[in-house]
Amino acid sequence: MYDIAIIGGGPAGVSAAINAKVKNKNFIWFSSKAVSEKVAKAELIKNYPGLPSVTGAELGWTFINHCESLGIAMREEVITGVYDTGGKFTLLAGDKDYEAKTVILCLGVQTVKPIEGEEEFLGRGVSYCATCDGNLYKGKTIAIFATDKIFEHEIEYLCSLAGKAYVIPLYKNANLTAANAEIIMKTPLKISGGMRVEEVIFKDGKISVDGVFVLRASVAPSTLVHGLQTEDGHISVNRKFETNIAGIFAAGDCTGRPYQYIKAAGEGNAAVHFAEEYLAGKQ
Amino acid sequence: MYDIAIIGGGPAGVSAAINAKVKNKNFIWFSSKAVSEKVAKAELIKNYPGLPSVTGAELGWTFINHCESLGIAMREEVITGVYDTGGKFTLLAGDKDYEAKTVILCLGVQTVKPIEGEEEFLGRGVSYCATCDGNLYKGKTIAIFATDKIFEHEIEYLCSLAGKAYVIPLYKNANLTAANAEIIMKTPLKISGGMRVEEVIFKDGKISVDGVFVLRASVAPSTLVHGLQTEDGHISVNRKFETNIAGIFAAGDCTGRPYQYIKAAGEGNAAVHFAEEYLAGKQ
Repeated sequence: MYDIAIIGGGPAGVSAAINAKVKNKNFIWFSSKAVSEKVAKAELIKNYPGLPSVTGAELGWTFINHCESLGIAMREEVITGVYDTGGKFTLLAGDKDYEAKTVILCLGVQTVKPIEGEEEFLGRGVSYCATCDGNLYKGKTIAIFATDKIFEHEIEYLCSLAGKAYVIPLYKNANLTAANAEIIMKTPLKISGGMRVEEVIFKDGKISVDGVFVLRASVAPSTLVHGLQTEDGHISVNRKFETNIAGIFAAGDCTGRPYQYIKAAGEGNAAVHFAEEYLAGKQ
Repeated sequence: MYDIAIIGGGPAGVSAAINAKVKNKNFIWFSSKAVSEKVAKAELIKNYPGLPSVTGAELGWTFINHCESLGIAMREEVITGVYDTGGKFTLLAGDKDYEAKTVILCLGVQTVKPIEGEEEFLGRGVSYCATCDGNLYKGKTIAIFATDKIFEHEIEYLCSLAGKAYVIPLYKNANLTAANAEIIMKTPLKISGGMRVEEVIFKDGKISVDGVFVLRASVAPSTLVHGLQTEDGHISVNRKFETNIAGIFAAGDCTGRPYQYIKAAGEGNAAVHFAEEYLAGKQ
């Protein structure tokens, strides 16, 4: 059981992890991708005080060096669900799970909207987790949406179980070896069905499926945490970075504009302070 | 007339100034002391992401270099009052005044409490400004409280006007040449009087005076801006860093805990964003 679980490898997550480490907290830190990839953008950053004129890539490496100098380990795992399990939170990452007393969400800005029907059929044919739910579809027909090449090993795994797999890569240059995989280069419009998922609908046709796997580097906040309050796509927080769920905090771009590295870093730091305050109050 | 006036030379003020400059805003920036003195503290800072392990002094110089690389000028002046003068704010600095449409207060944490009676008699014998009000006390008896050696030239100026000056330095090694100055090394307890100031009271005695000058590097927020809402000594702000007065924003330690460099820097950046939003809405 950890005191604090930090989810996200952008500036807010990095700052939260650094502060938690410096304060010698019992914490765990997850990011779906390496810090450098999360932070790296082409632009030149001129308003991060103390680092005049750095690129996103340079800032990313500076963050990595900082973390390494403190001996901070980041777990490169995608958290697909955070559940309140009675006085603590359980975080799912593939077939693994972790427990923490508080969670700090540093999810960044969602650029991908859920597909219509995705949230409606979650748990009724829609899954975010190949390793958790793959076995339910042995010999069956599935569709797999994947936003990133990093998921290809999970796609291969699903194909090894399924009878037939329609793979819908939302990225370029998909490269799969499974014989039963059919790659569809179309944008899915809707997941539909009755009690359970039955079809995936495209602009010019549809496919019948028993299940749909959605593999994304990040899950929408309200999908990740059931009942989490959001406003215009941002997680609602107060000045203590508290969400509407006691023990869950949020920091950085996911809490709203301005989308700035230094603002996110400041919030990540402060969120740890208020998580500590919350933990102290519970004792 | 400036669009934005930034008051304070700590991390929040530095970050606000850097962001305003990068965004090419029409702004002015005040600090009572050099950036390096504001930021420098003995401690080692390990949780400012991107700068692993720096001293306060090193961070201060890094900030100065950053500002210089962008050609940002900071005015080393003490702002003693901010007044709403109808759709704009007037900032007093000695015998000078400046006008701005918005103000960002980055005042840091107040370590000095006002002396009892100080706020009550402000404008009725208590003054923060030697150059503005010194002439009112020609040949009269005054007390001068000063928190810092940097005010000694103002003390000498006041002594040159007054008949008699009781100088109460709240710092060590006071060094004054004026013949009519009497240095009192006691802590003042109270300023008292009737319609106007009459006495300064110490634990073991009192002195009769016509006026009291209080020379401080920073003025308490509620004294600086009349009607500003504070709570437990911190300026009340929302997530947009808006105070209770439209057009006045606050960022950094003065808005509350945690007192952290990165948190303050993040807030200074964001406050500029919301000041811009406010200015856009007024047009």
